[in-house]
Parts: sequence; structure tokens; C-alpha cells
Amino acid sequence: MLSVGIIGSSGYTGKYLIKILSKHPYVEEIKYYANANAGKTLYEVHPELKNVVPNDSIYPADQLSVNHDVIFTALPHGVSIDMVKNIMNKTSLVIDLSGDFRLKNKDLYLEWYGYEHKEKYLLKNAKYSLADLNHQFDNTKLISNPGCYPTAVTLSLIPIIKAYNDRIKTISTSAYSGVSGAGKKLKEEYLFGELHDNLFAYKVNEHQHEPEILQSLKEYGFNSSYSFTAHLIPVFSGIYSTSVLFVEDDLNQTELDDLYRDFYSKSFFVRINSEPPALKNIRMTNFCDINVNVRGNRIVITSAIDNLIKGAAGQAVQNMNQYYGFTSSTGLLSF
Amino acid sequence: MLSVGIIGSSGYTGKYLIKILSKHPYVEEIKYYANANAGKTLYEVHPELKNVVPNDSIYPADQLSVNHDVIFTALPHGVSIDMVKNIMNKTSLVIDLSGDFRLKNKDLYLEWYGYEHKEKYLLKNAKYSLADLNHQFDNTKLISNPGCYPTAVTLSLIPIIKAYNDRIKTISTSAYSGVSGAGKKLKEEYLFGELHDNLFAYKVNEHQHEPEILQSLKEYGFNSSYSFTAHLIPVFSGIYSTSVLFVEDDLNQTELDDLYRDFYSKSFFVRINSEPPALKNIRMTNFCDINVNVRGNRIVITSAIDNLIKGAAGQAVQNMNQYYGFTSSTGLLSF
Amino acid sequence: MLSVGIIGSSGYTGKYLIKILSKHPYVEEIKYYANANAGKTLYEVHPELKNVVPNDSIYPADQLSVNHDVIFTALPHGVSIDMVKNIMNKTSLVIDLSGDFRLKNKDLYLEWYGYEHKEKYLLKNAKYSLADLNHQFDNTKLISNPGCYPTAVTLSLIPIIKAYNDRIKTISTSAYSGVSGAGKKLKEEYLFGELHDNLFAYKVNEHQHEPEILQSLKEYGFNSSYSFTAHLIPVFSGIYSTSVLFVEDDLNQTELDDLYRDFYSKSFFVRINSEPPALKNIRMTNFCDINVNVRGNRIVITSAIDNLIKGAAGQAVQNMNQYYGFTSSTGLLSF
Amino acid sequence: MLSVGIIGSSGYTGKYLIKILSKHPYVEEIKYYANANAGKTLYEVHPELKNVVPNDSIYPADQLSVNHDVIFTALPHGVSIDMVKNIMNKTSLVIDLSGDFRLKNKDLYLEWYGYEHKEKYLLKNAKYSLADLNHQFDNTKLISNPGCYPTAVTLSLIPIIKAYNDRIKTISTSAYSGVSGAGKKLKEEYLFGELHDNLFAYKVNEHQHEPEILQSLKEYGFNSSYSFTAHLIPVFSGIYSTSVLFVEDDLNQTELDDLYRDFYSKSFFVRINSEPPALKNIRMTNFCDINVNVRGNRIVITSAIDNLIKGAAGQAVQNMNQYYGFTSSTGLLSF
Repeated sequence: MLSVGIIGSSGYTGKYLIKILSKHPYVEEIKYYANANAGKTLYEVHPELKNVVPNDSIYPADQLSVNHDVIFTALPHGVSIDMVKNIMNKTSLVIDLSGDFRLKNKDLYLEWYGYEHKEKYLLKNAKYSLADLNHQFDNTKLISNPGCYPTAVTLSLIPIIKAYNDRIKTISTSAYSGVSGAGKKLKEEYLFGELHDNLFAYKVNEHQHEPEILQSLKEYGFNSSYSFTAHLIPVFSGIYSTSVLFVEDDLNQTELDDLYRDFYSKSFFVRINSEPPALKNIRMTNFCDINVNVRGNRIVITSAIDNLIKGAAGQAVQNMNQYYGFTSSTGLLSF
Repeated sequence: MLSVGIIGSSGYTGKYLIKILSKHPYVEEIKYYANANAGKTLYEVHPELKNVVPNDSIYPADQLSVNHDVIFTALPHGVSIDMVKNIMNKTSLVIDLSGDFRLKNKDLYLEWYGYEHKEKYLLKNAKYSLADLNHQFDNTKLISNPGCYPTAVTLSLIPIIKAYNDRIKTISTSAYSGVSGAGKKLKEEYLFGELHDNLFAYKVNEHQHEPEILQSLKEYGFNSSYSFTAHLIPVFSGIYSTSVLFVEDDLNQTELDDLYRDFYSKSFFVRINSEPPALKNIRMTNFCDINVNVRGNRIVITSAIDNLIKGAAGQAVQNMNQYYGFTSSTGLLSF
Repeated sequence: MLSVGIIGSSGYTGKYLIKILSKHPYVEEIKYYANANAGKTLYEVHPELKNVVPNDSIYPADQLSVNHDVIFTALPHGVSIDMVKNIMNKTSLVIDLSGDFRLKNKDLYLEWYGYEHKEKYLLKNAKYSLADLNHQFDNTKLISNPGCYPTAVTLSLIPIIKAYNDRIKTISTSAYSGVSGAGKKLKEEYLFGELHDNLFAYKVNEHQHEPEILQSLKEYGFNSSYSFTAHLIPVFSGIYSTSVLFVEDDLNQTELDDLYRDFYSKSFFVRINSEPPALKNIRMTNFCDINVNVRGNRIVITSAIDNLIKGAAGQAVQNMNQYYGFTSSTGLLSF
Repeated sequence: MLSVGIIGSSGYTGKYLIKILSKHPYVEEIKYYANANAGKTLYEVHPELKNVVPNDSIYPADQLSVNHDVIFTALPHGVSIDMVKNIMNKTSLVIDLSGDFRLKNKDLYLEWYGYEHKEKYLLKNAKYSLADLNHQFDNTKLISNPGCYPTAVTLSLIPIIKAYNDRIKTISTSAYSGVSGAGKKLKEEYLFGELHDNLFAYKVNEHQHEPEILQSLKEYGFNSSYSFTAHLIPVFSGIYSTSVLFVEDDLNQTELDDLYRDFYSKSFFVRINSEPPALKNIRMTNFCDINVNVRGNRIVITSAIDNLIKGAAGQAVQNMNQYYGFTSSTGLLSF
């Protein structure tokens, strides 16, 4: 039975960590930490949780208990880095949900995140863990939980790259995110009056999730041209990705279907479908739905996840489950 | 002063043809035709038009007057073909908004539309007219108004293809459409309960607008790999397209911006922006907003139109304006 | 441990019955029945349930097992009546989610539902059970599960009627429902293109839930003027009700708050709040949130529930729990 | 031909004033003023207006020209009061769209708006003008344009109050507003992530539009009990109001329909319908749709307007039209 701490309990991701972990059968103690909302109770910050979870207090992060087996950090990138550094010695496992420990090459932080990364040692030893691709945690003390876009995109591309890397000429991904990915930030473009009935591309050619995706693709041998374009769509939660691959020789639909079904045959949370996924089918779940469609020398691969669950809180708990040898889906089948 | 007939007055497109043409300064007579709704009045079919336009009667299509200078046909593809054939001799100009006369190669109809096209003569003589690219109507009796996706995509790609065709390796377009593109069809996937908060790709690798786009790109010399993927998004109206091009040598942002600004310098309705377009900025307008963004050897081109206006009724009237030598924007600046 | 049958497994309500009952700790067997979809499997009808529940077959209703302890009927009103009649002798408890057994006075069916109710005996013996107001099931064989609007409205009005009935002059309720209340019916007004960004009152002065509400209010002594007006709103799920009461003498805010808190002190699923409820706080939950606000001689009472959970599947399971003496919230805290 | 100034050009209302007045046939000059955005051009503040209107500069309000025939002030309440005071001597007509001059009894400002109103003289001489009820402007120098809720509610209630005031016992109004009524204020509850799929009552029993409505009702003799409750709904624009009246003796549907049709027979912009209105039918129009439905001694009256047009910019221009003796609908039939 585990004692768990959550730092960053006020946002959308924090709320789902609370909901999931408070019902997790192997979690016996759970404590909440935050900065701005320290001193409040859970019900004050999340009134919808009344009667759903106990009305515990939220403590300031500097009162972190040393008794936690696991600490989840759900903070903005650039902020998480210092927090993680400070707490590494107070627990045996940190699962960080920010972007601060995802890229192995520290120079990429300056290029894509806009800050200089000073924690070389932590970066090197952090285990970037796409939960459906990784079950190895040798001496891991810091798990870097993947980004929402990279989870949807990478899971959908790895099987074909592994099998047909030589033939791939170019891959272009267009991906679409619900607004909860931006949390509750008060920016005009996130107002209902502005985003409702709207859609737009953003951070074109400069989204920080691109190098994270590429890092994974390269691990499987990819070294052709890649492009990632992010869009904001008028839904609350959900990531949808559409990748187009041009290959040298025509591929075969049945072979590709088999390839994907085999690759993920042991992954409970990856569902290979014969139709393109739909956001409504994965909302409020930890599933990743994938479809592969080939026409001659081009392949269109679509995938969908819930950014708050599979793209954040759910995958973090799945990583915790796999780290401790629990069944992957423990606590992750209803929300 | 023109006399105008509209066949197919009950749908969303029909409604906008009514609104636009009833206020058009060079239209003095306008008559409405339909099948299912013949015998009703405009207010019965479109209650929101009460006091906005006169409450004229809707006539059965077989009572078509021979006095119309122009007849707009706003019917489903496969249905329009026979109607157009029957009315060609009753007027001097037909503007058809369906897909039935857009593809020059009649064999493509069997492959992409699923029916055998018998009207070779009409097909050959129909003038496919993207209004911002075409002002020539020599002996034209039948204008084929472009599809919604092809309008957004083709306008956004032609300048770079014209200038840099040799260098382009692959183009992948992902495009997103509001549900009004499907009209008022009673299908489960178009129900609010199903589409709200949802998004999905559809007709993957088999959307009938792909050969229409390709036909235009080839006219400007394109012969590399192309892919088009359509998605349904939870907005009422709007088409957004994101095209990714990989090229041989790096291109330059300023040169591309200049290229696009020059190319469309005389096109009132094409706006080249320094930021990606947003659906809200073009809704209920006849504009097409375009942005070009280059990073090394890849170029991301985004564009947006309103599918009911620029992608249907608005462009049809713009074609009428240009056919008669009126200013392009006549009657097209407010709705 | 119970064996359970669900008749009507294809709709939104059916889906939530499946999700809840398949994880219920006291349900060991569950079988699915339907008409149109008999012969299919759960995943064919609800692809989003893949890996969430086992992919069981759906049987035709006439193959109903006689081994079920409880049978849930989730069918349209007018259809349920015959089904319930036919299955009463095959089980010890039927929980009917339609409107067919809610009104004690059978003449009201002709007036408000438009059909003549022939099953006097069943009607008389059916137990109409608002789960947060009723725990008595003496010899009950048929539980009539309340309507969605009546659940939200009645729970919000009973305490004040019980305490201050003499003083109440008039009550006017305006209530708003998400579209899932209409299921997946293919009507033009339920299309995304028509309902999105829209709102309208419907069945004004003739909604069949009005006599159901009044029947409950009268049980607590109410006999003044009452009015109920239903509206469709552009959300997927949720019922919100706003009732305005004019009373003879001014009432006091603190006394009313205490009254409501006391009345529901033992009702886990009714939350009395100091702020008006919001749909987002009760979505996908079995809670009913209520706020009371007084200004002089007028009182505004707002309440909110999820129509698919508290207004249908959730309350049905809560009734089952209470019938068998399980804790009310068993299986009803996550979905 | 008029010269017009708009103070407050950056918000949603300002944008529609710009769109309407820039195409108005009797407006020959138009200048824009603002505070925060002074020095920018229209396209910088409203990129969607590019090519729709000329790209004029926005001036600081203290550079107001003395040549304007009319000045529109579209500022928040509490801010407008000082602005109007300062500019009254620089023009012959001010049309103020804030709430600062709507209530004749200045004490109500402290109670409902929360500030002490010092401008007794202006308040007394301001002409509160519901454009469909008022055409008299004797010596008017300051027109107070009605609020959005009061426009929808008051227009829907005046005919029955005028005819049957003696019989009315109570009136309860529930009304629902799209979020654009709050402008682009950066508050958490207006974020897409919070308001999407949501609905809630707000300012219960203390909304500042209640005394404005009551002031009008009293002018027509009303002195019974009244209640107004506002709700925020997940749509961009639109006000919908549902009023329930209990009367002493039963009323007759036909008589009520005739009453309303007669009362508004000369009001182009008020449409009396036989069905409840729908937001989609009045969006982006200056119409007010009304339906009356009676059942015995209770009457349900529903009405709908677009809050940005009829509830703000459109009605302001309609007031200008009627002040100058232009046809009411001049410039108000397309947007």
C-alpha cells in the first residue's frame, strides 16, 4: 500500500490525479500540495468533488511529507524543474507531468522551450516513459510522463516505423487539441466567446512537442523528414492526430492492420480499429484508439486520446502501476 | 438588371443564395424552385427569413421560367446532373453548385463519386471556375462552382506550385469542415449528441474532393505526391486546411510572403496574413484567409473559408459578378 | 449476488446501465436484450465500450432468461408498457425507466402522453421512487424510475413545500435539458447544425413531465398554481431547473438553508450549495445540486442533475441498491 | 448625411457599431475612439474587418472631434457616466449603450449597480428608448439605449400588461444569455473550458437589469409581483426570455395572438410567431421574436433577440434612425 503526494492539485490534470488516486486500490494515503491554493480545502478548489472524495486540506509545497512513496508533480514547464530538483531526496519516486525532463538533449530546451536547462544529471537519469511502450524501470527515481500530443502521435507511428523505416520518405502530422490542454490560463483566445465555433493552427513550425515526438521516432530508427502542426479545436478535452506517410513502394492494408494488432496485442489501452477514431469514443478514458489506412504509396494514420487522462493523469498512474508491478489498468477503468 | 432562378432553395446553401441575391443591386427578379418543398413559401421553409426577404412562393422545378438570365442549381451531386441537362436550353447561364461538372476526366466519377457520368458534352464545356483565379468566360453557358474543400486548399497552394513546382517533394493536406457542409441530412453522426465535443476523420483516402484539388494543381504543373484527408469538426460552418510541403532546398519566409501577396494583389477576397487564419475571422464572409510558414525545407500553409459562402453561395455569386463584368464584391460584403 | 437483465441496451441510457452494472460489486451476471440490435455484440453497438466491458451478445427480448433477479427496461414510453406487462412474471423486480408507470391517475396518460393506458393493475402497484425521497419497497415488484426533469425539479421543491406550503402563492419552473434526453432520434431539430448555438422552449404548457411533478408536489400538500416550461439547450447532458416561488410573507435565507440541509442531511447524493449549481459540476455524476435564494417574498430555487445518470441510469441503480438494502452509493461514484 | 463618432471600438458591441455604421447610407463620416487601443488601427484590433471596412485609426477619446452629429458610447457602466458628462457639449446627440442612464430613480444605482449616481440632471433628461416602443425625441440630447435582457423581456410583456394588467397576479422571468454579453472579460467562468457544455444561474435576485425591466412595466401600470433570473448559456450571442404569468381569469389564445399582432403591427423588427422562438432564427439580426402560449390561467411568453445587435449596436442605430426620421430598418437588414 502506497502513500502518495500530489503537487499541483488545482488544475484540470490535478483534479484527475485526485479522482484516480483517491480510488486506487493500492493507495492508502494521499496528500495534496499547491502554492496559490495552499490553505484551502479540496472542495473550495474543486466544488464538483464534494462527496466524491474526502475534503482534505491542501498544504504548501514546502511542507512536503517525507513519507510518500510516490510524488506526482503537475506543474507548468519551467516551474517543475526546480520543484523536482528540491524533492528528489524526499521520496523514492517522482512522476513529473511537465515537459521539463522529456528531452534528452538539453540544448533543445533553449530552442523549443525558451529556457536554458541546468539539470543535466536529472535529465540524463529521468526515464521518459510512454506507458504502452515501456515497462522497464531499472533504478528509476524520476519518471518523465509524456506530453499529450506526443502520446497520441508516437503510439500511432512507432509500429510502422519499426517495420518499414527504410521505405518512408516523409511524415506530416496535423494534430488537434481540446482547450483543457492549456489549463485555466486567462488568455483572450481561450475565452468561450473567442474559441467557440472556432479552430486555428498555433505555434506553427515551433511547437515544443515536435522534438519530443522526433526523439521517440529516432529511437526506432526514423531519420526522414517530419513535420508537426498543432491546432486548437472547440472541445473541452481530447487529442486527435492525423499523420500522412509517403513511402517508396505500395504497402498492403491487411499487412498493416496485422502489424499494428500484433505490436499492441499486449497493450490493454491501445485499441486498433478498422474505422478512424472519434474523440467521443476515448473521452474520459485511458485508451488510445488508432486506425491505419493505406492507398498505394501513402498511409494515413489517425489516433485519439483524452489529453487529461491518457495524455496526463491516466498515463502517470499507468506508469506508477507498471513501476510497482500492478496490473496496468488498476484504477484506470472508470473516472 | 438580371432575372435569376434558384433551384434547390431549402438547404443551407439555398438560404444564402436567397439572402445574397435578394439584396443584389443588379438582380431585379428572383424566383425559387424546389422539389419536396414546392408549393410552400419561403417563410415556411426558412422562418428566420421573415421580414428579411419577401415571402415568395417556391415553385416546382418543372415550372421553370424561360425568362431567367441565370439559374443557380444547388442540388446534391448525382441529382444535379439531370436537372442541369434539362434546363440548359432555357437560359443563357447555369451556375451549378454540385460536384457533377467539376472533374474533366469522366472516369473519375466512377472512381470517386460512384456513378457513371453520361454527359460528356456538358462536362467538356462546363467552366470550372475558382472565382479568385479565373475571370475568363468565353462562350461559357455552364459554370461549375468549386467544392468547399477545393476552394480553401487550391487557393492556398497554387502560388507556391506555380513558383516552385520543381522543388516540391510531397504535399499532405489535412482539412476540417463544419457540419453544414453535409446540409440537413438525417444521419446519426450529424446529431448534436454525437458530433458535439467530437472530431473524426472520414472518407480517408477516398474523399471525392481530392481529384478536384489535384486537377487544379496539375494545371499549374504539379506532379508530385499528394494526399488529402477530411475531418468533421464541431462547428456550424467553416473549412480550415493545413497543407505541409517538403521541398528540395530551403525556402525563405519573406520571399514566400511576397510571392503570395503579389499573386493575390488584385484578389479582393483573398487575404494573406502573417498569422494562421482562424475560422471566426472568415465566418459569414466571402474571404479566404491564407498564411504561409516556412522552416527550412518544410512549408506549412493554412487557409480558411466559410463553406456556405466562399465555398458555395458566395463564390457562385462572385462568379456571376465576374461573368457579367460587375465588381467582384457586388452584394458580397454583408449577409 | 444478483443476476440482472437490461432490455433496451442501445441508447444513451442503456449504455450507462451497462457501464454501471458491469462494475457493480453485487452484480455477478448481466445479460443484454434489444430489438433492432439483437444479434449484435456490445462493441458493435457501443464501440467506445471496447475493453471497458466484456463484448457480450445482445439477445432478442423474447429470449429473456427467467433467472434474473432484476430487469431494467430502458424503452420509449408507449413501448415499455407492453414489455413490462409481458415480463412481470419472469422476475421478482422490474425497474422501468420509461414514463409508462409514473402517473397514478391513468386519465392523465391520454391528456399528456396521448395514449390510453390499459394497465390499471400495474399502474396501481408500480412504486414511483425518487430515490432520495423513498426507501420503502413493501411488496414492490415494479419500480417506476422518475423522469429527468421531475427528478431535478421535485427534489428542489419538496422541502419548502413541506415546511411552508400554506404561504406559497405560485410556483413557476423553467427547466433546461441537454439533447441526450431525446436519445438518438433522427429529427432535424436535433442535428448539430440546428441545435448548436441554439436554445428554444418546446412543448410549452404541454410537457408530459408537468403532471409527474405535480403528482409529487401534491403528495406533500401543494395545491397552488404551478407552471413548468421545458427548453432544449446546446449541451450533451444535464438538466437545470429554476423555480420561482412567490409567498405570502417574507422568508429568511438562513432558515431556508437550514431547512434544506436538514431535510437532505442523510441523502448522500443531494448537495445543498451556497451558490447556484452549474451543469459542469454534476455531469457524469449521480448528484443533485440545489441552491435556494430568497429576496423578500420571492424565492428562487435552482437545481441540476445529469439526465443520463441521476435522471435515468444512476437513479435506477440507486433504487436497486436501496431495494436490496445496499449502501445507496454502491457502484455510483465513478463512471 | 451624418458624421458619427464611436467611443469604445474594441469590444464585440463596438465591432458591430463599426460594421453597421460604416455601411449606413446616411453616414458619411465615422471616427473611432478608445482608450487602451488608441493609436492602433481597426485591423489591428479587429483583424476580421480587413477589407470589410477601411483601416482607419483609433484615436484617444480626449481627441474627440467637435464635428460629430452623433456620438455612440459603448463603455462599461460606471465608466460611461463620466465620459458622457464630458462630451455632452461637443455634439448634439449622444447614444449611450451602458446602463448608466437607464434608471430614472438614482437611488437604484446604489442598490443594483453598487455606485452612487451623481449626474441627476443627465439622468433626468436622458431618454430611455426601447426603439420598438418609442419614436418620440423632443429635445433629446442623450438617448439611453436599453439593456439586452430588458429589451427581450420588456417587449414581450408590455402588450399583455397594457391590456390585462388588473388580472395579473405574478410574473416570473427566467432569461438566458450568450457569453458575448460579458464582452471579452478575462474571468475563469468565461473560459471555454469552463463554460462549454455548461449552464448556470448568476446574480440571482440581484441582477441590475431587473429594476430596468420593472421601470418599464410600471410605466404601463404593472404593480404586481415580479421576478427576474439570469442564466449564462454556452452560446456566443443571443438572449432568450421565458416569462410565466398567472392571471385571475383564464385568457384566450386567439385574443392574445391578436393582441400581440395588433400591438406590433407597425414594428418591422418585432415578429409574433405561432411557435416559440429559437436563438438561431434571430442571430445576427435586429429582430425580436415573440410567442405567447396560454393554458387556462397561466400564460407563457417567450422571446429572443441577438444581444449584440437588437440588445446593443442594432437598437442603438435603430434609435438613431428614428431620431432622424429615417426608416427604422435603414442599414439594419444585413451585417
